[in-house]
Amino acid sequence: MKHEVLSQLKEFLSEEQISTNETIRNHHSKDESYHTPVFPEVVLFPRSSREISHILKLANEKRIPVTPFGLGSGLEGHVVPVQGGFSIDFSEMDDILEIREQDLLVRVQPGVTRSMLDKALKKHGFFFPVDPGADATIGGMTATNASGTTSVKYGVMKDQIRNLEVVTPDGEIIHTGSLAQKSSSGYNLNDLYTGSEGTLGCITEITLKVYGIPEHITAARATFKEMTEAVNAVTSIVQTGVPVARMEIVDESSIRQVNDWMETDYEVNPTLFLEFHGNEAGLNQDVAFAKEILSDHGCTSVTFEKDTRGRMKLWEGRHNLAYTYTHAYPGRSMMVTDVCVPISSLAEAIVFGREELDRQGLPGGLVGHAGDGNYHAFVMIDKIDENEMHKAEQFNEAIVEHALARGGTCTGEHGVGIGKKKYLEAEHGASLSIMKSIKKALDPNNIMNPGKFIDIG
Amino acid sequence: MKHEVLSQLKEFLSEEQISTNETIRNHHSKDESYHTPVFPEVVLFPRSSREISHILKLANEKRIPVTPFGLGSGLEGHVVPVQGGFSIDFSEMDDILEIREQDLLVRVQPGVTRSMLDKALKKHGFFFPVDPGADATIGGMTATNASGTTSVKYGVMKDQIRNLEVVTPDGEIIHTGSLAQKSSSGYNLNDLYTGSEGTLGCITEITLKVYGIPEHITAARATFKEMTEAVNAVTSIVQTGVPVARMEIVDESSIRQVNDWMETDYEVNPTLFLEFHGNEAGLNQDVAFAKEILSDHGCTSVTFEKDTRGRMKLWEGRHNLAYTYTHAYPGRSMMVTDVCVPISSLAEAIVFGREELDRQGLPGGLVGHAGDGNYHAFVMIDKIDENEMHKAEQFNEAIVEHALARGGTCTGEHGVGIGKKKYLEAEHGASLSIMKSIKKALDPNNIMNPGKFIDIG
Ligand SMILES: Cc1cc2nc3c(=O)[nH]c(=O)nc-3n(C[C@H](O)[C@H](O)[C@H](O)COP(=O)(O)OP(=O)(O)OC[C@H]3O[C@@H](n4cnc5c(N)ncnc54)[C@H](O)[C@@H]3O)c2cc1C
Ligand SMILES: Cc1cc2nc3c(=O)[nH]c(=O)nc-3n(C[C@H](O)[C@H](O)[C@H](O)COP(=O)(O)OP(=O)(O)OC[C@H]3O[C@@H](n4cnc5c(N)ncnc54)[C@H](O)[C@@H]3O)c2cc1C
Repeated sequence: MKHEVLSQLKEFLSEEQISTNETIRNHHSKDESYHTPVFPEVVLFPRSSREISHILKLANEKRIPVTPFGLGSGLEGHVVPVQGGFSIDFSEMDDILEIREQDLLVRVQPGVTRSMLDKALKKHGFFFPVDPGADATIGGMTATNASGTTSVKYGVMKDQIRNLEVVTPDGEIIHTGSLAQKSSSGYNLNDLYTGSEGTLGCITEITLKVYGIPEHITAARATFKEMTEAVNAVTSIVQTGVPVARMEIVDESSIRQVNDWMETDYEVNPTLFLEFHGNEAGLNQDVAFAKEILSDHGCTSVTFEKDTRGRMKLWEGRHNLAYTYTHAYPGRSMMVTDVCVPISSLAEAIVFGREELDRQGLPGGLVGHAGDGNYHAFVMIDKIDENEMHKAEQFNEAIVEHALARGGTCTGEHGVGIGKKKYLEAEHGASLSIMKSIKKALDPNNIMNPGKFIDIG
Repeated sequence: MKHEVLSQLKEFLSEEQISTNETIRNHHSKDESYHTPVFPEVVLFPRSSREISHILKLANEKRIPVTPFGLGSGLEGHVVPVQGGFSIDFSEMDDILEIREQDLLVRVQPGVTRSMLDKALKKHGFFFPVDPGADATIGGMTATNASGTTSVKYGVMKDQIRNLEVVTPDGEIIHTGSLAQKSSSGYNLNDLYTGSEGTLGCITEITLKVYGIPEHITAARATFKEMTEAVNAVTSIVQTGVPVARMEIVDESSIRQVNDWMETDYEVNPTLFLEFHGNEAGLNQDVAFAKEILSDHGCTSVTFEKDTRGRMKLWEGRHNLAYTYTHAYPGRSMMVTDVCVPISSLAEAIVFGREELDRQGLPGGLVGHAGDGNYHAFVMIDKIDENEMHKAEQFNEAIVEHALARGGTCTGEHGVGIGKKKYLEAEHGASLSIMKSIKKALDPNNIMNPGKFIDIG
């Protein structure tokens, strides 16, 4: 980085907000994925939208690439600053600005993490449903349109967003929505910036819907002899409209990981982790109905987690699955696939995924937000082994192709980043050029997270 | 219209698909609002996306304005072809193309109306929740991001849309989504085209979510002495999270209209029309809880509509309200306001609305999708009386200003069209220029519904 730029930064940032330290740059060179790290030239720690506005104005003028950085828990290399430049870290912008109890809304800065938000909301009897496995930042979750185990009932990140404050590449500070529950006023900018992966600007404030903690919660594990039986049970439950709050599929190999990590003794078989939210009477009726459907599909046992501890353990086990794989395969990196298909195709998609993984001889397991038609393969790869890398790529390509042929998407929740870029043409066809036109219009100098997701040339 | 253009149209459309007939042009010059009609030069009745592609290519080349026309039930002059040119009528594209039972999805052409869709879905045990008062087209409802009485539970139009086929202004046929329940693949184009009011292209196919008809449905009328009590009951119900499926507020004057029109004898007082969907046990518990909240807020009586006929009558009464006002005030036009505010501000917004309407001495009533914080004033105006028109405009301005000051929007569901254009600057500030950049990028020659909603000079 030129000396001149550094001294210009110092005009609006203090010394400790600007870092060229090797360790810090290393930390901002990568995420949790297998993608090759690239160091940013400088890491910046802004404390306000105004400071970010100054940074972007400077970057735009000098054509310096800018990569926003949340927690770096992404799985597709989104935060790797492939063209160098600035990495903007939001960890100093982590205030919960306002809880509007009456409106069931919360306004936060982007660096607030999921667990920080949960802690603050609990005091008010609220919770925020979207729960990616990592303790991600709300900014990162917004930028990737994240989702999680509860999305089958509560929706994904975009369904929670009422308003964003965004700093555009030319340093303008805009808001994209309002506090109203619904609106037909102009183009929907909330949903355009949500999921834009840092390519259109920096998200500096987020106003989110929150929910009252449910009156009653029941969780259960349902085991099956065959994966297909489990998936068919899921599709039946979705089709009959039983309002489940969570419905996760966990394969045998992943149950083993959970047992090792959590010291549980869950039956080692294809399993559904389920949860129901509601009033007591309605919930009991839902559970009874769901049990019927499960046994119709060959479920061999349903174990209820009645107390809070057992329930917490179940979901902790599910949430930590990715980490347990990383621990179980030291020295290997993780490639996580993320196709999402219409629910009628989920069974064949999962069977195909399992078969392909075995055919390539790659170690790993399958889990999924089955209620949404979304599943992941955790593929444990030796990055130095070119042959294995090639197999992993072939595996990913095969399941993406399989999903697209059934009207699915290459990424249900992780986003495109570096890893899924090559599938966008096949998925979007001519509308990819619409996306490019939008990128060109809103970031004409291509300073925001360049080289990722969308190329404008 | 130049003779040359007409003969070029005949290269890909048949004679009966091209109309310059006065009556037909008159029909396409206006909607259900008070806005001044303007005749299109030609009305076109395409039968396929390919034909629409040809039309738009021609229009783009010759810079001919194009205004898509659904049913013309809009309330803000959206379909008035203020710059002449082509009006594109989708009534010949009204096929239900596919019902994917297992995926709870339906794919339709844009000219399918709400009632056509409902009829087709019923046979499969499904329903489509979004229910504007008019029997609008699915294309029009998508283009305005419509909503209705059930949005408090099922969401608005954008929440139902999985995929759109769109013909862009340069004649390209694109798809904006997939069949997957969720996606993080690229910019969210579904939600950009939804609500774009015909300014970005023609929507030629819509894939929508549908829902199983609820196991149990209970409807009720709850009457209050004061409007504020009724609204406060609504906010309490929302805040405690009782899952109502419908929660409409209807003022005294509107109850009188319902009684006249439907030959009912509903108590003439501020009233909530409520509905609950669910399994039997859960629903009973919800209803009991809601009754408690209602009586805590001074509700004087709750009358349940137990049989289907009584229930249908209730909602027919609610849906026909706008028409009953039109009938009750022959010779007058209707201005319908549409602010939406955060729920905590709804009571004061409605009180303010009623006071302002009385202060201006304008005839009309107030009703609202109260569960969403959205209410309408039906203002019956004499368009020829300049003084009265001015008063109506002042009224609208006052309530919009009041709503914006509370973080609301000028339009919760009807859209911007001609009537709300002047409020966009105040509502969106700097982000209005982002909208303009998008419009410029995607319709550089400004052929799509020009003069409406967004001006790009
Ligand atoms: C163990 C594990 C489990 C996971 N499970 C899930 C899951 O269930 N569901 C799911 O959706 N994801 C999951 N993920 C992926 C990841 O947690 C999500 O993508 C998450 O949303 C990323 O948040 P982050 O704060 O780490 O963002 P980062 O990884 O730091 O950034 C992600 C993207 O957002 C951009 N960005 C970050 N902050 C901003 C901002 N303020 N303004 C603009 N752009 C910004 C970045 O530039 C980047 O493009 C998992 C990851 C791990 C490691
Ligand atoms: C009595 C009454 C009650 C109403 N109640 C409600 C209500 O509860 N909720 C609500 O949201 N609205 C309501 N409305 C307003 C109106 O019904 C909605 O705005 C509806 O969505 C318009 O549909 P339409 O088919 O009539 O579209 P039109 O009025 O014909 O067109 C509306 C807009 O959509 C565009 N358009 C239409 N089709 C296409 C297409 N295929 N591609 C691109 N653009 C297109 C047009 O150019 C125009 O900008 C009501 C109206 C009336 C008269």
